[in-house]
Amino acid sequence: VSLEDDIEAFGQIGRDGEGVTRLAWTAEIEAARAWLLQRLADLGLRASVDEAGNVLGRWESGRGTAILVGSHIDTVPHGGRFDGALGVLSALEAIRQLKQNGIRPSRPIWIAGFNDEEGALLRTSMLGSRAFVGGLDLADLREHGVAVAMAAAGFDLERLPEAKRIDQVGAYLELHIEQGHTLDERGIDIGVVTSIAGLVGLRARFTGETNHAGTTPMRSRRDALVGAARVVLALRNDARRRSDSTANVGSISAEPGAANAVPGRTVIEIDLRSSSRDHFVRLEPRARLLIAEIAAEERLDVDIELVQSKPPVELDPTLQSLIASAAEAEHASSIDIASGAGHDAMLIAPHVPAGMIFVPSRRGISHSPDEFTSPEHCLLGARVLARTLTALVTN
Amino acid sequence: VSLEDDIEAFGQIGRDGEGVTRLAWTAEIEAARAWLLQRLADLGLRASVDEAGNVLGRWESGRGTAILVGSHIDTVPHGGRFDGALGVLSALEAIRQLKQNGIRPSRPIWIAGFNDEEGALLRTSMLGSRAFVGGLDLADLREHGVAVAMAAAGFDLERLPEAKRIDQVGAYLELHIEQGHTLDERGIDIGVVTSIAGLVGLRARFTGETNHAGTTPMRSRRDALVGAARVVLALRNDARRRSDSTANVGSISAEPGAANAVPGRTVIEIDLRSSSRDHFVRLEPRARLLIAEIAAEERLDVDIELVQSKPPVELDPTLQSLIASAAEAEHASSIDIASGAGHDAMLIAPHVPAGMIFVPSRRGISHSPDEFTSPEHCLLGARVLARTLTALVTN
Repeated sequence: VSLEDDIEAFGQIGRDGEGVTRLAWTAEIEAARAWLLQRLADLGLRASVDEAGNVLGRWESGRGTAILVGSHIDTVPHGGRFDGALGVLSALEAIRQLKQNGIRPSRPIWIAGFNDEEGALLRTSMLGSRAFVGGLDLADLREHGVAVAMAAAGFDLERLPEAKRIDQVGAYLELHIEQGHTLDERGIDIGVVTSIAGLVGLRARFTGETNHAGTTPMRSRRDALVGAARVVLALRNDARRRSDSTANVGSISAEPGAANAVPGRTVIEIDLRSSSRDHFVRLEPRARLLIAEIAAEERLDVDIELVQSKPPVELDPTLQSLIASAAEAEHASSIDIASGAGHDAMLIAPHVPAGMIFVPSRRGISHSPDEFTSPEHCLLGARVLARTLTALVTN
Repeated sequence: VSLEDDIEAFGQIGRDGEGVTRLAWTAEIEAARAWLLQRLADLGLRASVDEAGNVLGRWESGRGTAILVGSHIDTVPHGGRFDGALGVLSALEAIRQLKQNGIRPSRPIWIAGFNDEEGALLRTSMLGSRAFVGGLDLADLREHGVAVAMAAAGFDLERLPEAKRIDQVGAYLELHIEQGHTLDERGIDIGVVTSIAGLVGLRARFTGETNHAGTTPMRSRRDALVGAARVVLALRNDARRRSDSTANVGSISAEPGAANAVPGRTVIEIDLRSSSRDHFVRLEPRARLLIAEIAAEERLDVDIELVQSKPPVELDPTLQSLIASAAEAEHASSIDIASGAGHDAMLIAPHVPAGMIFVPSRRGISHSPDEFTSPEHCLLGARVLARTLTALVTN
């Protein structure tokens, strides 16, 4: 058994044309759990599924809190074979290497295959790791219809609080593809993740006046789409000024939606990120001010809703050093890098020291069947993970 | 019977909450036809429905070609009581006035209640008047599924060519609400329409690259929505420079449509108008150039499709003079005005001299339950129409 074989085998589960679809609470993720339980058992670990659908594999050895290693096993619709999966499969590879090297861990090592990091089915992102740290809002999940989906898969929403096991964990390691193209473009093997960007999600609803496109003089219009278009560009231009920040408008609608009607209503979904704590706190007020100014200039009413807010997370400096040393020992090039994407580590880092290893994503493509990391980089990443883990359990 | 009564009674047909919905080939338009046939018969006209669902009322008098007077009887969904309807009902009122005045027309007067000017059901705008002038493309209608809708209403698509009766018409008069707010804002009673703006409809599809909103550096993005937003603003700014032109983007979509995905694809629907023939011919090439430049700057591919192109139409100068004189005789204020909206007159004007009378729309609102023209302005418009008609049939 090799890491490459595992990537190939696991990528067949939920295969959907060219892509992979494993959404939480579906038959595909259940098949993924079954596969992973078997692979963990083959390695001699105690394998189980928790109340949130996370797969846990326990190498109970030594004493004290466990080192948790893993990532997530779900995907977006028509996603790739590496996002999440590689973190779990490289953890299996790391365990193989430790066993081959005759390591007897001084403390337990747990492997996690988290459920529903993407939240693609019911917009419940990071449900698995959130349950693991005891951070779920059950009332909110009930509102989102999660209970029905869970029951259909044989799970009970009311038992989710029992999945909290963070108290038995002393540190967390997660390997992940970069999902950006910094490593790939610069030809770097390993990213030592320093932080995970904070995220502010906003929804802005502009209201102007629907009018006839041919009879309303240009100066008399209150065009909601024009206001939204100005916001799209202003947010883009603002984010371009800072290397630690991004801004995206990913969704837009204009009503009534006829070519010959001046749009009276437009809704946009905004995604703002920053890895800087100082700048993060300014994201929401700056965006609100900018939107309000443009709306006033275009004589539009605007309603701005905060959809989500996750502050940036700093990863543990000691773990960063261990990862960098492990990369050096493997003769791998490495750089410090901030993660623009959210990860399960984001939930765990506030509770215990957490470290993340990035491997290159070809052309930065992710959430796509074209997602790709070379077998060499996958294996190199797993070896860096194994060395870091070894350092943590042999002191 | 008064014009005000007719507006009230006709507005009940297809009443839908606060608005009015009479789409072609539905039970509501059939009810409107039945009502109108009865009213025409009451006036002593020979009333019939043609092969395109237009209602025709013939006052066969004198000799030569007929003066056609009318507008359309269909509406947009949840439309108002005045758009189209007022032109037909004021024609009834004009006939009443001619009869009261003992006029014996020197030539026939026909009233038209055109079907499907809005084209709201199947995007077949001006089907009725187009059939009347023999300008339909049957193959195109077959593709749009019109045959089935027509058959269900008891009509036969293959017989549409028989509705061509323009050869028996010598001139056309249409009264319509302005659907803009020039008359209302300036306190003018009557608009003497000089021209109907030409219209270019374009659909632009931008293709960039879908990427993760958090991990793709701002400078590396190929954001299709950013390109589209720049086009929305550039077209608006361009149109603002000319008083005879408008530009509108009424529809937009971004894919994949998730807040955390940089949009790889965006489609916009563009509506460009100009009442100037010189400028009209530049609308499409200018827009194509502007879109191509922005797409190149944003590193996007773009496909631009011409959806429709209708050149501007000049209305007949003699009829304009007659309408202006009629307004003066009624002690009504009047101005020359270009129509930004399309009308049945647009189809008829290339065949015979055509004239249009605008009455004020409160706040310019149209295609809405809030559409309103005062009873006084409705009646004044009908009197100007009656005077103009009298001048045409008493020479």
